[in-house]
Amino acid sequence: MEQLRWPDGKSAAAAFTFDVDAESAVLWGNEAVAARMSVMSHQAYGPLVGIPRILDLLEQHQIRSTFFVPGHTADRYPEAVRSIVAAGHEIAHHGYLHEQPTALTLEEEIDALDRGLAALADVAGVRPVGYRAPMWDLSWRTPALLAERGFLYDSSLMDADHPYELSITPGADQSLVEIPIQWALDDWEQYCYLPDVSGSGLIESPRKARELWQLEFDALRGVGGCWVLTNHPFLTGRASRAAELGDLMRYVLEHDDVWVTSLEQIAEHVRTLALPPRSITLPDVPR
Amino acid sequence: MEQLRWPDGKSAAAAFTFDVDAESAVLWGNEAVAARMSVMSHQAYGPLVGIPRILDLLEQHQIRSTFFVPGHTADRYPEAVRSIVAAGHEIAHHGYLHEQPTALTLEEEIDALDRGLAALADVAGVRPVGYRAPMWDLSWRTPALLAERGFLYDSSLMDADHPYELSITPGADQSLVEIPIQWALDDWEQYCYLPDVSGSGLIESPRKARELWQLEFDALRGVGGCWVLTNHPFLTGRASRAAELGDLMRYVLEHDDVWVTSLEQIAEHVRTLALPPRSITLPDVPR
Amino acid sequence: MEQLRWPDGKSAAAAFTFDVDAESAVLWGNEAVAARMSVMSHQAYGPLVGIPRILDLLEQHQIRSTFFVPGHTADRYPEAVRSIVAAGHEIAHHGYLHEQPTALTLEEEIDALDRGLAALADVAGVRPVGYRAPMWDLSWRTPALLAERGFLYDSSLMDADHPYELSITPGADQSLVEIPIQWALDDWEQYCYLPDVSGSGLIESPRKARELWQLEFDALRGVGGCWVLTNHPFLTGRASRAAELGDLMRYVLEHDDVWVTSLEQIAEHVRTLALPPRSITLPDVPR
Amino acid sequence: MEQLRWPDGKSAAAAFTFDVDAESAVLWGNEAVAARMSVMSHQAYGPLVGIPRILDLLEQHQIRSTFFVPGHTADRYPEAVRSIVAAGHEIAHHGYLHEQPTALTLEEEIDALDRGLAALADVAGVRPVGYRAPMWDLSWRTPALLAERGFLYDSSLMDADHPYELSITPGADQSLVEIPIQWALDDWEQYCYLPDVSGSGLIESPRKARELWQLEFDALRGVGGCWVLTNHPFLTGRASRAAELGDLMRYVLEHDDVWVTSLEQIAEHVRTLALPPRSITLPDVPR
Repeated sequence: MEQLRWPDGKSAAAAFTFDVDAESAVLWGNEAVAARMSVMSHQAYGPLVGIPRILDLLEQHQIRSTFFVPGHTADRYPEAVRSIVAAGHEIAHHGYLHEQPTALTLEEEIDALDRGLAALADVAGVRPVGYRAPMWDLSWRTPALLAERGFLYDSSLMDADHPYELSITPGADQSLVEIPIQWALDDWEQYCYLPDVSGSGLIESPRKARELWQLEFDALRGVGGCWVLTNHPFLTGRASRAAELGDLMRYVLEHDDVWVTSLEQIAEHVRTLALPPRSITLPDVPR
Repeated sequence: MEQLRWPDGKSAAAAFTFDVDAESAVLWGNEAVAARMSVMSHQAYGPLVGIPRILDLLEQHQIRSTFFVPGHTADRYPEAVRSIVAAGHEIAHHGYLHEQPTALTLEEEIDALDRGLAALADVAGVRPVGYRAPMWDLSWRTPALLAERGFLYDSSLMDADHPYELSITPGADQSLVEIPIQWALDDWEQYCYLPDVSGSGLIESPRKARELWQLEFDALRGVGGCWVLTNHPFLTGRASRAAELGDLMRYVLEHDDVWVTSLEQIAEHVRTLALPPRSITLPDVPR
Repeated sequence: MEQLRWPDGKSAAAAFTFDVDAESAVLWGNEAVAARMSVMSHQAYGPLVGIPRILDLLEQHQIRSTFFVPGHTADRYPEAVRSIVAAGHEIAHHGYLHEQPTALTLEEEIDALDRGLAALADVAGVRPVGYRAPMWDLSWRTPALLAERGFLYDSSLMDADHPYELSITPGADQSLVEIPIQWALDDWEQYCYLPDVSGSGLIESPRKARELWQLEFDALRGVGGCWVLTNHPFLTGRASRAAELGDLMRYVLEHDDVWVTSLEQIAEHVRTLALPPRSITLPDVPR
Repeated sequence: MEQLRWPDGKSAAAAFTFDVDAESAVLWGNEAVAARMSVMSHQAYGPLVGIPRILDLLEQHQIRSTFFVPGHTADRYPEAVRSIVAAGHEIAHHGYLHEQPTALTLEEEIDALDRGLAALADVAGVRPVGYRAPMWDLSWRTPALLAERGFLYDSSLMDADHPYELSITPGADQSLVEIPIQWALDDWEQYCYLPDVSGSGLIESPRKARELWQLEFDALRGVGGCWVLTNHPFLTGRASRAAELGDLMRYVLEHDDVWVTSLEQIAEHVRTLALPPRSITLPDVPR
């Protein structure tokens, strides 16, 4: 397997990332859910309790992290978003109302991107260099739209263990850095349950989630890969899950050969490597 | 994170609460299920076996608890409900037929509240001060309806680790004490399966449920929060689950710095703190 | 809680029961599934491999067991059913094509009962005294239909930890012995997955299922109850699950104070106690 | 239970098999999913990363394995498929676009078989002797279609613990070797989640999957059976899952009495035993 060269002699990379979806993740495509006050409060836990707790953890472990913030979250919780910036973390783009790109027309996708940019600028004075598709559901046209807007990287694809340069369209010279993610390194499947909204009813113990994530850390470290954990403050911000996450941070940091940093730092490093872009093509479907 | 002052120098609070849904939880919105004798018997296990067993556990551990009782349960199982009162526990409101407030018109929501009050008064001579929305699905108008009826507290929201004063409408002076709950501290997701009625088929071991609940107890204790466990007698009343719950009671009680009590006691304490009410606002949904 | 007196100074009872559904469990209400040869083969594993393996286990541990056999299984696998009889186990009634009673008209329910009786008589020369509703989904009229046909007991309800006398209709003198079961003591939820047919995709380790069942055995033993495990030869007949079941049999038998036997023996014992029948009434559903 | 004689005095057999579905498994019957770039990348992980990693594991443990390759995968990833051949493994048939046989007309089923054969011949110069139905969903006519095309074996049925000769139609002399599989020895149920495409949201730890598979290995070894594990490179190719799979390979190989080989070798051995063919008949469905 191809290897990627990490800075300072490090053998692998790790990033703790957070998707600050709050209400947007359940409102998009289902506006009627706004009428359910308890559901709204479940999502509000993220900015109200989860973010301060997670910022404390990151401070305690001296980790620089990346927070993907939908514009709607920035507009509704400006102080929470500014506190992330104030703590020195990266703010990246995650749509306006957590819109799933493949469900949008081109115009709607452009609108979601531009409104998200505007909200992050207005609320936090930030121009993000990174993007992550809501629901990790990139459309084939998203990369070009991101490049037009000057983004450096995307983090929504699942076809590698380490970052690469992604041609913005097949065969194009222009590229984005792609920092892959995977479903097994997400907390939604382990923890999320909202009747009639999301989840099958399964709620795992933080011990099980941590085992899953730590085993993959060990294994990706072994192959020189890039471990990207995705947590949601409304889920992993809960006290026992955050405690387990803190233990996992400590575990990860004990491995000196691993570069623990934000996705922005990783993307900038990858860009310096001047890798040949990889083209991904739409599969043919016979007849 | 903000802290809440607990009485007698305690550092955190814990409540074992029980939702005595019996048949109502499956009948509402699905009356045809009454024809399924086995399904009805599954729910009847709660008042017939679960409640006596749980009352024994609480007696054994000298814990005062809160039971949320739908009016329909009171009408169908008056002796079971009176036995809860006789044992010194709090009876609180949980709708009449376990109606999900957000699925009701205003008139229907009022009707469910008033019929629930009437049933608890008739059967058990009780005027409850606490309310929990069936399915933890509070509507935005429920708080005002509760305040009009003199309720002291609600326990259906999920946006904090400890109780607070909730403005009955945004900006109002009048408030209810809100004692938050969370899906991970519920037994339904761990244990409930009724084909074509509820559940995905997952039935967890009591050991796993207990690990989940105990980890959150440890962590909420660590942050001075309020741990509210919600169990259903038709589920956790089963012998091995009750045994595990008894062990968890013992574990919780071994922590002297935690105030283990009913929600009513917690709400009364919070009311004495004269906290400034928190306003929660309906999120804007763009376009 | 009320206690039931067990024979010979035993303090509790335990039964290993098997529902020999084979193809019927997936064909009923979904005849088109017959076209799926792999699905049929999944069900056929029960009589072809599961039953001989389970009979060996029971022989090895000298346990008398109860097998609930749909008439369709008897007609399709007569030798397998006769081998159960030859090994000295009880054969009980489980519908003809595993028809869910609450989905049938009265005529259809009668037809399923009578065709099931005819098949068991024809194939195995057996007149069963016990009945279990397919899907544990008894209708309110089933008890009277069973009594008319001379059945001694039913095993489909979930509202007690031990057997009782069930009035065949509310207030009637005539009764059936009811031997309750529960979803947590079933292997379907732990093991069954057939895409588009049954199951959410969850397949548990036999270790987990065994922990769940053993904890409930320990706890029901502690309260003098009646532990009734329900396994399906097409599921638990698999090699590692059967191995774990064998270990559980050994564990159960190590407890001398528990009466391990068939449901027929249990029902006959209960009948000798001349318990007052319990009436179960259809719940009122307001408006 | 009947026993099968294994070569060289071995007491049981074990095969590590891989279904190289890549995009085909999600595209068939759902062509619109091609628009979801992230979903496509999730599947592409199999040939891009999973296959090289799995080939390394097999090389390291000196195991000959069987890879079931849909024609579409061969056409889209010819180098990956050729690398499997170059490493000395068996390539077997798995449809063209992972078409579920029971959802096809006879003409469509023939077309899928012949296009799959053509793709494997064109890309890898291979004429497969083995077949596995996509979704393990064999139709009743598939065996005869396979025999007409000279296949030696199928691996899609679930009614035995060891291979047998399967009559291509009931009562026919001509037969295929059938090498049974089972859902509990598949990685899809343990690991696969693609929102709106596949899976309930459950993602298990590799530790749990390995326990499940190893217990069944131990038990099938104990009864002289044939343990056939099915893994998908896009799932088990992930770093920590592959690490656990490698440990399991080591464990299996430590048992000298077990023949670890490809399905082709197993089928050829079974053919030499000249077993009487087993006829499987369509179940009658009353009325």
